[in-house]
Amino acid sequence: MDRIHISAAYDSDLNELRNKLLAMGGIVEQMIAGSVKSLEDRDSVLADRIIAMDREVNGFEIAIDEKCLQLLALRQPAASDLRFIALALKIVTDLERIGDQCANLAKRVKEINEEPPLKPYIDIPRMAQYTEIMLKESLDAFVRGDVDLAIKVCQDDKCVDELNMQVQRELLSFMIEDPSTITRAIKLNYISKYLERIADHSTNIAEMVIFMVKGKDIRHSTSCMVD
Amino acid sequence: MDRIHISAAYDSDLNELRNKLLAMGGIVEQMIAGSVKSLEDRDSVLADRIIAMDREVNGFEIAIDEKCLQLLALRQPAASDLRFIALALKIVTDLERIGDQCANLAKRVKEINEEPPLKPYIDIPRMAQYTEIMLKESLDAFVRGDVDLAIKVCQDDKCVDELNMQVQRELLSFMIEDPSTITRAIKLNYISKYLERIADHSTNIAEMVIFMVKGKDIRHSTSCMVD
Repeated sequence: MDRIHISAAYDSDLNELRNKLLAMGGIVEQMIAGSVKSLEDRDSVLADRIIAMDREVNGFEIAIDEKCLQLLALRQPAASDLRFIALALKIVTDLERIGDQCANLAKRVKEINEEPPLKPYIDIPRMAQYTEIMLKESLDAFVRGDVDLAIKVCQDDKCVDELNMQVQRELLSFMIEDPSTITRAIKLNYISKYLERIADHSTNIAEMVIFMVKGKDIRHSTSCMVD
Repeated sequence: MDRIHISAAYDSDLNELRNKLLAMGGIVEQMIAGSVKSLEDRDSVLADRIIAMDREVNGFEIAIDEKCLQLLALRQPAASDLRFIALALKIVTDLERIGDQCANLAKRVKEINEEPPLKPYIDIPRMAQYTEIMLKESLDAFVRGDVDLAIKVCQDDKCVDELNMQVQRELLSFMIEDPSTITRAIKLNYISKYLERIADHSTNIAEMVIFMVKGKDIRHSTSCMVD
């Protein structure tokens, strides 16, 4: 193969990697939306579907890791392509763990659905919307190398943290006023924490994007801290 | 430089990477032990020291990521060295997040120390011992390429999960019997969950070691599942 052919094959490999990551991200986004919908609609069948989707996400993780290793071994990429592939290796772990969190969330939903409803859900669906948008935007920032969008994701994380605190405070007052609500309130507390952790994963992705694009590390700087 | 000199420099680079990861692991182990000691001894000064150590861990993360990128760019490693470096990129993220969990744990300890003690701690220190050993063994398995040890780590995770369930059940009965314990019990519940997540991170490291050594992926297989 001459140089142009090699380059075309290389670009197509990088595109394949990019598309696989986006496809994985798309499934994980559906899992976030679906798991919280299964809570709102008290739909345990949907919760089971979300739990089953985790297997698909795991398959993507293995395929993407292999693709990254193959690209590193055969193409010996330099500079920005190298950072892109190294970042893909890290992002795939965050995506897989978001999938785990959604599956855990759906398991708690199934337990909650067996008991009478505690209260109408307002803040938890709002958290889910935020986390979904944050994930989508962190992946968009990754494929476009868009630092401004990545910074927005880091900032949005504060809103999710505040909503989580609010949910926790509210559930605490439920428990203190009526101890018969304790087991349900604790499960809802978990669900709120799962969403907060999902948002943290997206923030991690966004911080790594800034690292990739700027070539400097803003992780652990005060402007974009993740607790 | 002739080939022998290049090879010696390369080995020394790989050794430096290995040693940096072990040093980071050592600090994180101290953070696990120290954060739970600060709970047992009601020692908020120690808790503050643990929180401060997180900064050191974050510095290691940045340095190790840079070293990995440098090795990939300049040395163009193949086969097992490539897997080693790719794995280092992933492991460093788990170590950094264990550091975060320890800092979070120490923050909850400081809150708990301001209130009267709820009960003597038995299961939480046992969980901490398990998680410390699991972390140490997962890193030993990584540097030695020891699959049997990595499998042991995956199996030990079940014990931590069981202890966490036990702690949660016990705290639930405290809350139901005496609602004045609710706020303290919820904080202890968080501490138990932090330790359970730390154990999950070590299990993730162990699973990736098996992937590196065997060249095949046992992540997501039934023999070594992480919830």
